[in-house]
Amino acid sequence: MVVQKEIALSPFSRGFHLITRQITGYLDELPETGLLHIHLKHTSAALALNENADPSVRQDFNYFIDRLVPERDPAYTHTLEGSDDMPSHLKSALFGQSLTIPITRHRLNLGTWQGIYLCEFRDSGGSRELVLTIIG
Amino acid sequence: MVVQKEIALSPFSRGFHLITRQITGYLDELPETGLLHIHLKHTSAALALNENADPSVRQDFNYFIDRLVPERDPAYTHTLEGSDDMPSHLKSALFGQSLTIPITRHRLNLGTWQGIYLCEFRDSGGSRELVLTIIG
Amino acid sequence: MVVQKEIALSPFSRGFHLITRQITGYLDELPETGLLHIHLKHTSAALALNENADPSVRQDFNYFIDRLVPERDPAYTHTLEGSDDMPSHLKSALFGQSLTIPITRHRLNLGTWQGIYLCEFRDSGGSRELVLTIIG
Repeated sequence: MVVQKEIALSPFSRGFHLITRQITGYLDELPETGLLHIHLKHTSAALALNENADPSVRQDFNYFIDRLVPERDPAYTHTLEGSDDMPSHLKSALFGQSLTIPITRHRLNLGTWQGIYLCEFRDSGGSRELVLTIIG
Repeated sequence: MVVQKEIALSPFSRGFHLITRQITGYLDELPETGLLHIHLKHTSAALALNENADPSVRQDFNYFIDRLVPERDPAYTHTLEGSDDMPSHLKSALFGQSLTIPITRHRLNLGTWQGIYLCEFRDSGGSRELVLTIIG
Repeated sequence: MVVQKEIALSPFSRGFHLITRQITGYLDELPETGLLHIHLKHTSAALALNENADPSVRQDFNYFIDRLVPERDPAYTHTLEGSDDMPSHLKSALFGQSLTIPITRHRLNLGTWQGIYLCEFRDSGGSRELVLTIIG
């Protein structure tokens, strides 16, 4: 069984955002056992799994990745689309644009503290498109 | 065909550990062709594929990631759970918490030098839970 | 339905290379809906999705990752295979060695700007082997 759905998320501000409930809200009944694959169709944002409770974690992600991948590095050559563009491509590749999550007893089998992060690296990234594919 | 199993690994010390044999020991007969998905249900550890022969590689991973993601950065705001906690979340997201590995002729089709690493980033991470899902 | 194919790419120079067309050239007719999993059987190269139009992006990836993961760090202990070897293992784990891409209406459902990168981190990495697995 393969079921697929394409969705578009409302724009997010730059930063790390919990979207677990949004994602599960888009899913119809899940199979007893299987996998959910989530694919983000962009190269300047990312998906990640991380701590879902304390917002300070997402704040520190923001701090850390902006320090790790600085803007306005004079060595960058891809600069025409703004100072946040090339760093966004790099951050996107480090975190990755897709997640695969097990489905168990008709539910996503995430750990207690695992939430799905939409990582928006552009100042104005606009709506982001996802492809949800369920194998069961 | 979808087959799934949940397992709990004995606690590992902080560092990078080869768990290929442990994982294959938990698997029953694999399908002729397919995929194995391994999901770690935690946000302060990770899974990775890397060099399976020389332990010095795993030692250097430890050195590198501790330098890349320092502890006790005064800018961190998520500090209540110990100085190893926020760095563990960041490391976990950089490496990722799941792997998908092809199955060919009833065996994992890894490269000669590829082994499965359990990356334990906490000082006392305790037992780690995995979900193994086989699609074939 | 599971279909699998193993391929070997001609050697690439050190750097980031677009291989989307090479990959799709190896694929026979894709299912209406499904997933393509691409696995790289090596620990000193990686696969990533990123910007497919402007070569300056790939040039800046090269600059960034060489700065993030320096060669000849005196703290490395795994040095027998050359100064590019241990950094290659680290870069490989940060980017990851596999991709999963949705298939929709018999085609890879990538974003407009998403291309598949073969990230070659060795000076002379030689031919790289991939396993392509289609679930549909």
